[in-house]
Amino acid sequence: MAENKTAYEPLTVESIPVRLGVVEAVTRHLGSETETWQADEVGDGNLNLVFLVKSPKSTLIVKQALPYVRLVGDSWPLPLSRAFFENSTLVRQAERDPGSVPEVYHFDEEQAIIIMEFFTPHAILRKKLIAGEKVTDLAETLGNFCARTAFRGSDLFMATADKKADAAIYLGNSELMAITENLIFTDPYFDAELNNHTEGLEPLVATLRGDIEMKTAVQEMLLKFSSNAETLLHGDLHSGSVMCTDDESKVIDPEFGFYGPMGFDIGMLVSNYLMSYFSQPGHRNDADLAEYQNWVLELIEGTYTAFEAEFTHLWNTERTGILFPRTMFEDQGHSADGALTKVLQHIFTDALGICGIEMHRRLLSLAHNADFEEIEDTAIRAPLEARNLMMGRELIRQRGEIANIHALCDMARKFNEETFL
Amino acid sequence: MAENKTAYEPLTVESIPVRLGVVEAVTRHLGSETETWQADEVGDGNLNLVFLVKSPKSTLIVKQALPYVRLVGDSWPLPLSRAFFENSTLVRQAERDPGSVPEVYHFDEEQAIIIMEFFTPHAILRKKLIAGEKVTDLAETLGNFCARTAFRGSDLFMATADKKADAAIYLGNSELMAITENLIFTDPYFDAELNNHTEGLEPLVATLRGDIEMKTAVQEMLLKFSSNAETLLHGDLHSGSVMCTDDESKVIDPEFGFYGPMGFDIGMLVSNYLMSYFSQPGHRNDADLAEYQNWVLELIEGTYTAFEAEFTHLWNTERTGILFPRTMFEDQGHSADGALTKVLQHIFTDALGICGIEMHRRLLSLAHNADFEEIEDTAIRAPLEARNLMMGRELIRQRGEIANIHALCDMARKFNEETFL
Repeated sequence: MAENKTAYEPLTVESIPVRLGVVEAVTRHLGSETETWQADEVGDGNLNLVFLVKSPKSTLIVKQALPYVRLVGDSWPLPLSRAFFENSTLVRQAERDPGSVPEVYHFDEEQAIIIMEFFTPHAILRKKLIAGEKVTDLAETLGNFCARTAFRGSDLFMATADKKADAAIYLGNSELMAITENLIFTDPYFDAELNNHTEGLEPLVATLRGDIEMKTAVQEMLLKFSSNAETLLHGDLHSGSVMCTDDESKVIDPEFGFYGPMGFDIGMLVSNYLMSYFSQPGHRNDADLAEYQNWVLELIEGTYTAFEAEFTHLWNTERTGILFPRTMFEDQGHSADGALTKVLQHIFTDALGICGIEMHRRLLSLAHNADFEEIEDTAIRAPLEARNLMMGRELIRQRGEIANIHALCDMARKFNEETFL
Repeated sequence: MAENKTAYEPLTVESIPVRLGVVEAVTRHLGSETETWQADEVGDGNLNLVFLVKSPKSTLIVKQALPYVRLVGDSWPLPLSRAFFENSTLVRQAERDPGSVPEVYHFDEEQAIIIMEFFTPHAILRKKLIAGEKVTDLAETLGNFCARTAFRGSDLFMATADKKADAAIYLGNSELMAITENLIFTDPYFDAELNNHTEGLEPLVATLRGDIEMKTAVQEMLLKFSSNAETLLHGDLHSGSVMCTDDESKVIDPEFGFYGPMGFDIGMLVSNYLMSYFSQPGHRNDADLAEYQNWVLELIEGTYTAFEAEFTHLWNTERTGILFPRTMFEDQGHSADGALTKVLQHIFTDALGICGIEMHRRLLSLAHNADFEEIEDTAIRAPLEARNLMMGRELIRQRGEIANIHALCDMARKFNEETFL
């Protein structure tokens, strides 16, 4: 039995028992005694309604897209189809890296509702990083996630006609891609209306906007973002899109799913780890600071190392697509290891470019990170943000020259000692 | 009035008056006295039926896709939808470079028929190059065509939502893209069933297949071909897709239209010019040879110079898309010339890679060029093909290092003096 088909209408805590009590996928989990259900709106993101719906039997997440950007209001319309793309991406991620994302119990395209698995006692990773908490196996889980989704969604693995048909579907998510194109790749580098930044950063903003070579590199990366449909990506893989216990991590919220460069997700993730790293002096005292900052750098190294190890494993065991076919390498007695090295270098270069740009936009454009925003004293915050901005610039400019993830972490240590304001 | 909608059926010279006599777009040109019409099948390509239909008033081209590859037969099915993509591409090319392609008078999707302008007294450019004939303004016409279609089909110019919607449509041309992926980027480099090459080239074939670095580079280019939807391309722009008089040139046959790297069409065109260059000693005597070979090199230089000049003009006057926006450059008093240089370098590098690969596949894979094939004495042909193969390898390997189109022509002169067999 499915919900009655009616025109789109936002859910409320009051209407949920009536509207979802007729959905078999829901009653299977919560039971059909809807009077025992308790619904709470818990959305803290920028875009959607999110409800936690509990019964004595179980708990579910009910996520519904709004026809506008929640953060801004109905002056900024946004299509309901993003729920379709979120659902589609969750389904593909579950196939490509089983257990990594919430299981979808029910999807209603017309109502833009996804009903899915509730993770407990998981908390948003960003909050844990701000609180100085560690998560066991986080690096391996997310490194594997990025490798498996990147590889298995690409022409290295898929039948290319299937991949092209899927890429065609995702080009329909153009309005969400446009948010990324504007807020991430463009707005930070001119005086855009929605921009804001911490007082005191003005000289560095001027430095960034005055760096024509760097801006050119940013736009070279935008050319890749908007055109290079290498694989299906999460599209918004920051530490707010990860939920963890002390030893388990899950990825959520892929409504920005799109086909793009294989280095995009891992680059954005590393970027958000670096922002955690640079913001730590605003959150803890000297006794814990160095040790936790070191843990964050180890997390970065561990994540990227796991990514490359898993990508290598898949290259050697699942390379069934049109790219780098065995007929041209192994079947002629030729190793494809050199080709893998080139592909990994290509991914790393793109990842570093994305990483640096994300480090800029989170401080200069519309949607800032709690890592820095929760440092209330701007006299403390601004100098930390300055390190982050300047390292972002270096990553964009030097993205083709940085040897490996260890060199990136060494660079972070160096910037963490510098004073720019 | 349109043709009665019936199931797909191939046209014949006998059925054309009956079937097309009810199409207003046809009778407008030919008149309605169908008994005066004369239809001839003139297709000499690899894929389709092509009819010339004459009346006392006018002449038309009637092109119909077959449900298989004409060159091979019905053992190789190929979708009729390629007529849809050819028509779509002709319409877009006509918008982006008016006068460059035949005007479409009528398109019947179900019958896979395009009825279009007949060019007379134009001949296929490849035949003119083999005959040693020159065409005035050819370089400028095709350089402009490549620049205008590349620029105006990209995110440099288009509204990105429109570009993405169009790119989604073209991903449906995946079976034609698969031909390119296989015949061009893969088959030459292993012992593929459909391959054939001139006797005597075996040592060089072994050299190419033994060059792991070069094969890796070929596959890096395939990654770009299959993923980098930068702009809408012709997809098969060789000298058999150009019709010329002594001073006018037109582009035909874009059924391989696809979204790909901006350097693809110009790279394939240059490649076919180079094949003309290297094959010339098989077609003319010493008295004319050097002078005509020089003309071909001037054609290459002129084409690429026109391409870059027109691309630069459009960059400065029509850069209205999301990429390299004026808000980030000119509006801040910053020149975007350096960014243009980077974009042109990116295009040139991709073009050289495609160029080298096309030089291989036309001698080693299924569909060879008349430039070499018409040299009947294989003892003459093989050493000329050897130069072509070896320069192709150099272009693939050195695609990021060659300074400009003049350096490419210098390289061609050098290879033209060498002996590889």
